[in-house]
Order: sequence, then C-alpha cells, then structure tokens
Amino acid sequence: MPATEMQQLVSLCQRRGFIFQSAEIYGGMKGFYDFGPMGVELKNNIKQSWWKAMVYQRDDMEGIDGCTIAPAVVFQQSGHTETFTDPLTECRDCKSRMRTDKMKDPTVCENCGSKNLMEPRNFNLLFPVQVGAVEGAQSLAYLRGETAQHIFINFKNVTDSTNRRPPFGIAQMGKMYRNEIIARNFIFRVREFEAMEMEFFVPPGTDEKWHEYWLEERLKWWESIGVPRNKININDKPKEELAHYSKRTFDLEYLYPHGYDEIEGIANRTDYDLGSHSKNQDELNLTATPITNTRSNAKLTAQNAEGQHYVPFVIEPAAGVERAMLAVLCEAYTEEVLENGDTRTVLKFKPHLAPIKAAVLPLARNKPELVALAQSVKNTLQKLGLGRIVLDTSGNVGKAYRKHDEVGTPLCITVDFESLEDGQVTVRDRDSMAQIRLPIAALAQHLRGIVEDAA
Amino acid sequence: MPATEMQQLVSLCQRRGFIFQSAEIYGGMKGFYDFGPMGVELKNNIKQSWWKAMVYQRDDMEGIDGCTIAPAVVFQQSGHTETFTDPLTECRDCKSRMRTDKMKDPTVCENCGSKNLMEPRNFNLLFPVQVGAVEGAQSLAYLRGETAQHIFINFKNVTDSTNRRPPFGIAQMGKMYRNEIIARNFIFRVREFEAMEMEFFVPPGTDEKWHEYWLEERLKWWESIGVPRNKININDKPKEELAHYSKRTFDLEYLYPHGYDEIEGIANRTDYDLGSHSKNQDELNLTATPITNTRSNAKLTAQNAEGQHYVPFVIEPAAGVERAMLAVLCEAYTEEVLENGDTRTVLKFKPHLAPIKAAVLPLARNKPELVALAQSVKNTLQKLGLGRIVLDTSGNVGKAYRKHDEVGTPLCITVDFESLEDGQVTVRDRDSMAQIRLPIAALAQHLRGIVEDAA
Repeated sequence: MPATEMQQLVSLCQRRGFIFQSAEIYGGMKGFYDFGPMGVELKNNIKQSWWKAMVYQRDDMEGIDGCTIAPAVVFQQSGHTETFTDPLTECRDCKSRMRTDKMKDPTVCENCGSKNLMEPRNFNLLFPVQVGAVEGAQSLAYLRGETAQHIFINFKNVTDSTNRRPPFGIAQMGKMYRNEIIARNFIFRVREFEAMEMEFFVPPGTDEKWHEYWLEERLKWWESIGVPRNKININDKPKEELAHYSKRTFDLEYLYPHGYDEIEGIANRTDYDLGSHSKNQDELNLTATPITNTRSNAKLTAQNAEGQHYVPFVIEPAAGVERAMLAVLCEAYTEEVLENGDTRTVLKFKPHLAPIKAAVLPLARNKPELVALAQSVKNTLQKLGLGRIVLDTSGNVGKAYRKHDEVGTPLCITVDFESLEDGQVTVRDRDSMAQIRLPIAALAQHLRGIVEDAA
Repeated sequence: MPATEMQQLVSLCQRRGFIFQSAEIYGGMKGFYDFGPMGVELKNNIKQSWWKAMVYQRDDMEGIDGCTIAPAVVFQQSGHTETFTDPLTECRDCKSRMRTDKMKDPTVCENCGSKNLMEPRNFNLLFPVQVGAVEGAQSLAYLRGETAQHIFINFKNVTDSTNRRPPFGIAQMGKMYRNEIIARNFIFRVREFEAMEMEFFVPPGTDEKWHEYWLEERLKWWESIGVPRNKININDKPKEELAHYSKRTFDLEYLYPHGYDEIEGIANRTDYDLGSHSKNQDELNLTATPITNTRSNAKLTAQNAEGQHYVPFVIEPAAGVERAMLAVLCEAYTEEVLENGDTRTVLKFKPHLAPIKAAVLPLARNKPELVALAQSVKNTLQKLGLGRIVLDTSGNVGKAYRKHDEVGTPLCITVDFESLEDGQVTVRDRDSMAQIRLPIAALAQHLRGIVEDAA
C-alpha cells in the first residue's frame, strides 16, 4: 500500500468509526488509540477467529485469561525487569529522543543532524504500579509487558484442573503495556495493546519439530484472515538479536506501508520461564515491599510416561491484535475506478471479519410498512448469531451503499414496495456490486453461506 | 446459598479450572484473580450475552472499546481525582486497615476491639501511572476507575461517524482498576476487573422515563442469564449516598452468600460528564507535566429537531463482569442427593453460558475407530459456532459425566461400538441425567435447540 493510500485509510478509520486517537478532545495521548463502533467489531472478530483456530478447533489446547497487573517478582523471575529495555539517547541540542537500535547512524541526531547526543542508556519498558492502600506500605507491581507470564505462573493450575500433559498448549488474549520510547506508525507501535499469545509445552528434544509446525500453522491462519503469505517475510532471527529466553525465533514480518515489520514472533523459549518460576531464589533485587512471596512454592514440571518429572520446553506464537487489525485493514483497503469515472472505496474484509455482516435498508423511511418489514428481516438475520446486523433507516440507498462499502459490509439488503407484494428483496454484493432478487425466506441461508464459508 | 456451599463452590472453581488466585505460586496477590480454562469461557459467554442484548438486538446502540489508561485531565474533569475516595482508618494497636463507611461502629477496631483508631482520611482509588520515556518529563495518567469516561470523551467521534442523535446509547466492555482498601468476598470486591457499561443519551426532561425503562430492561437481562428477580433488591439510593454526578441511582443488589450487595448500578448521570468535558477550565490542579492539553477542544452536544444544540442527559446501567460471574455461579451451583445416596454436584448454567457446550466421549480410548468417529462428531458440532465442544478421550465415561456435571456441560455424547454399526450415539442430559439414543445426523439440531432456545 502506497503512503498516500495509507493516509486515506487513516482518515477513513476516523471518519467511519474504526479508530480514534485516545483523549482526542484533549489533544490526544500519543501511543493510545480507542476503537469506535466499527473498530470494536473488527477487533473482536479477529480475536474470535484466533480463539477458534487456536482453542476450539484443536484438541490439545486450553485457554486462560489472567490479570494485567502482576507482582514485581513475576517480572523479576522472568528476566524482564533486567532485560526488557530499549537503548535510549537524547539530542542535547533539539531534545529529540531516539532509540539507538533503530537509528541508521546512532551518532547523529535524526531530527536536527547534531552530533551532540547523550550516552545511550537502557530504558525499561514496564509500567510500575503501586498496589495497596497505605503510602510507605505499598507494593510494587507492573502492568504486564507480555501476557505469557500469566500462562507460565498458571501452568500447574491448568495441568491440575485439566490433566493435560505435553504436548499441549495454553492460549490467552488480553491487554499488555509497553512504555515505548517512541510510539509511531498509527496503531503499529503503541503503548497499550492486546496480544494473542499461546505457549505450547513439549518434551525437550521435540521442540525444534514443533517450532516448524507452529510456523506453518500460523501462516495458514494469517492467510485465513486475508493476510497472504507472499506479503510475509520469515525472519529467522540472528543469534545476537534473540530475546534473553529464546533459543531460536521466527519473526513474521508483514509488508506494512512503512516497510516490513513484525506482525508475529514465534519463539522457542526452551525451559527458561517454567524453570525460572520454579526456582527458590533468595536474593531478589526488590525495590519496594513485596506484595507476595519472593519464592515460588511450585515445581512447574510435567511427567513423562515413565513417571519422571521434567521441565517442558515451550514454543510461543505471539501476535498483536492491533498489528493484525492494521494488516487486515491494509489488505482490505481498495480504491476502484468505476465506469462513470467515480472512485469507489471498499474495505474488502473476509466476511467473517466484517464489523457488520448485513445492512437492511427500507427504501423509504417514512413508510411504516417498509420499516416494519425491514425490522423483521433484521431481527431474523440477527438471530443467526453471525455477528452484527444493522437496520439503516436513512432512506437514501445510494448513500448507504457507499457507507457500507467503506466499512466493508458484505451484503446490503433493500426492502422496497414490491417486497410487500412478492416477499422478495434486493441483495447487493459488496465486492461485485451485483444485485439479485431473493425471497426473504432465503436470506438466512445466503448470509450464512457467505459468512461461514469464508471462516 | 449457605456459607458452607460457598466454600465448596470456591474449591470447585479452583479444582475445575474456573478461577485461580493470581500469582498463587508466589503466595497470591490479594484482590487479583486469573480465569482458567472454564472461567475464561464462562466470562466471555456472559460478556457476549450482554453485548448481544445491548448492541446487536437493538437499533439505538453503538459499541466502542477504549483504552484502560487515560491522561490525568480526564479524571480531573470527571471529578474522580477529587471524589473517587473511600474513608480509611487504621488501628494503632493491631495495624488493621478498615473502611469507616463499612464499619458497624467506626470508633472500634473490627479486628482487636481497640478504640485507638487513627483519624479517618480519604484514600483515592485510582492507580496512577507515569507515561513517557524520560524521568522528570513523564506524564501523569491513571488506570481507569470506570469505563464510562472513554464513552464520554468519544461522544463526538461516535456521533460524527454514525450520525446518531439522542435517544441512543454507547456500550463498552473492558478492564477497570480500583485500588481497594480491602479486597474481599472472593471475586466480588477486587482491584482489577471488567465492566459492562452503557451510556444512554437522551434529551433533558425525558431522562426519568428512560431511567425507569433501563431498570426494567436490565432486570430482564439478569433473568435471561439465570439471576432471578426475586433474588435482586432494588435500592433507590438515598440522596446522601449518591455519587457526585448522580441525580438518582438504582442499585441492583443480588443476594450473595455474604448478603445483598451491588451487582449493577443504574444511574441518572444528568449532563454532568458531557458538560465537564466541554468546559475550558484553566485552573486544573495538575500534579505532573500534563501529557495532553488541559482544555477540551470540543463541545459535546447534540442537536434537536429545530437545530438547537443541547447537552444530553445520560442514563448509565453499569455492571461488573466478575460480580455477574459470581452470581451466575451461585445460582448454578447445585448439590443433589442421588437414589444411591451419593451426592452429585452440578453447575446448572443456562446452556448459552456453559463453558463447554458438549463433550464427545469415545467409550474406549484405545480403539482408533471409536476415537476417529468421536473426533468427526466433535468437528461437526464445533463448526456450528455455538461455543467450545470438547473431545474427551479419557475413556472413563462415568468419571467424565461427573467432571462435566461439575463444569456445567449441557450434553455428553458417548460414541460406542454400536455407533459404528447404527450411526447412533448416547446423549446424556446434564440436568435430568436422562440418556437417549440419537442419530449422529440429528445432533446438530438437538444441540442448537438446547443452546439457542435458552439464549
């Protein structure tokens, strides 16, 4: 997608209610976005698609939903308080702040060209939070910088309650927070976002095979939501770029308008995390009264067929919901020149991701019989459980078509005066713009076919 | 529910994977809970039921999903930094901390009986968070203490992108945070939880009528998820107990095991919040460098039929997801004495809320034909999109029945050797324990009927 189209997309996202800068009426808060009436549906549909693929359609998976705040000890044991940092420099002349690992030449200010830069220092991305009622007796916790740790610290709870043994996985979706030095590229790099992460626990020695397996599975899922393989670069990350817990990581890099950038990381985290949370460490460098114990009381192990305990290895496919949304929006965004020379803007979402599945339009809004029939069609289709159906009583069908093209509604269903006679309605297809007459009684099957076949 | 049964329920929630104390392996973090494999499904099903009732099934509603962090100015304008407080006292002898508004006698320590209590002081429940990379230039923000403010500050974004005019509503579900002085009663009073909140905007003068309307609508919804009216007390709150923004509030109080307590508040918030966020206030008492402007740039108004601008009044039904879960669990929990004298524990959820809709059990796990047929039954039912279906290959049907009673699975479907011959399976109903033989081809309709009819 060219940069000019990207500007159009950002503008459409605001205009049509997908994505708003958070606290916009106060000038906006950088790195924070709110999702509007269309955005909340798109986001939830992407999450549901992930949950279906990762949990429901498999027989080796459980889900959880953990807190977004964790006591300091969790991120100390996981290594995040020490290593979850970006190298930060500041220009003494223009005061710009930059990440030195992202600069072409880390000795020259990107903004003003000055060489008067500060010595880089490591800036930790975790947000600290004090929990508890009395100052001085408060306890240090963090907003989670990855959702994975809540899976690791619940490993025993999950295996005890489900009798799972490796190979099996635990999936989780939810908010996470990173105090990014520079938030940029629309919803790509933000400070508050949602993750879709899964930890797959396997016997050591089988980890490399499973790592390849999950790479393939995840590519298939991206394809299923309309992000094709030929737009994804697989970066088998060089050793020196690996996170502290990783033996090997595949970064899936999607071709965003700003260039190839990470849309998902698939890491072999070895037995690092389960091992860390099983340690009885005495010497934790705590900076405040601990809210919890500083020693884990659990051995996070599994048993093999011979009854021996071992620490499983972990394969982790971890994707960001907002980055998925941005890729889906970029792939769906289409400008078409019509025969009459007009330009039509369409979001060609896969139907199961579309915020609205069908819009029902009475041809005139001041005719109660038409509105009542349209209302009953809407209610019937809503009951199918396929997602949001809307009744659009603006009474201007041409305008409604343009709007629903721009929010990616697969079907527009117009109820006109003939409908009152023959029980048929006009069904207009978003992508082909073809219009057919269908009996009202056939709408459910028609819509179901369109939404479910694509899912 | 008697206290002894409540203990059983809490234990079941841990044992069967509904609810775990967060960071349990580190001794647990008070006021924080994680949701396990069954809990995450129950929670999501409750949320989806609310979203369907509040957004999909109506024609006067939009949804949004805002950030959980907001700049300080938002909660200053809303009045929360000043008034969102609980009165805290501490015993000088035993060091216990108490909320004086919840004490029977606020001059005597509840723990040790001492009268040596500190002067009560107001403790603010908002969690502060510093956003930004450089110390000294960081900016004060808060974890949101109510989700409502993100609806108010997006009012103009939503009306601009959807052309809505009052009466209409904006619904939102999501995390919120309150640094409670004392967290207690399992998941009832916690520090991190999810809200289901809706702000309904109406012309002034029609607010009282709409307030009564929403009281009725919400009682219907609670009934639909298995929380009956006769267990809910409607507390028309006395003037002196109203929040700073409220003209009148109905608290719905459910009969929890610890007594009647708030499950939802339905407030008439007047034009307080939209008005506050439209003000150009200069003198904000900011305690840190503002991350945003301190003046709103918007007038949050609507136009009447004559084109005149006015600030709408707001009716707000606001419920907590965890409190809903706890009520649903209490209502569903059943101990039955069987004919043979054994006790059966069942969670009799409404089927659309059940974490697992059906379990498919091959009678023997070492027979590949049985497992393959059970797998194909599971896959077919999963595709219906009704929720999670599991394949349970433990091979012990009696044990599986007990387990699925305890997690509230409406149907257990057993595939046996006869099934290979006649294409029929045994379907066991959770509540009646009745077993019937059904053709595999009839399962989809049977399951759909059970799950959808209740929804």
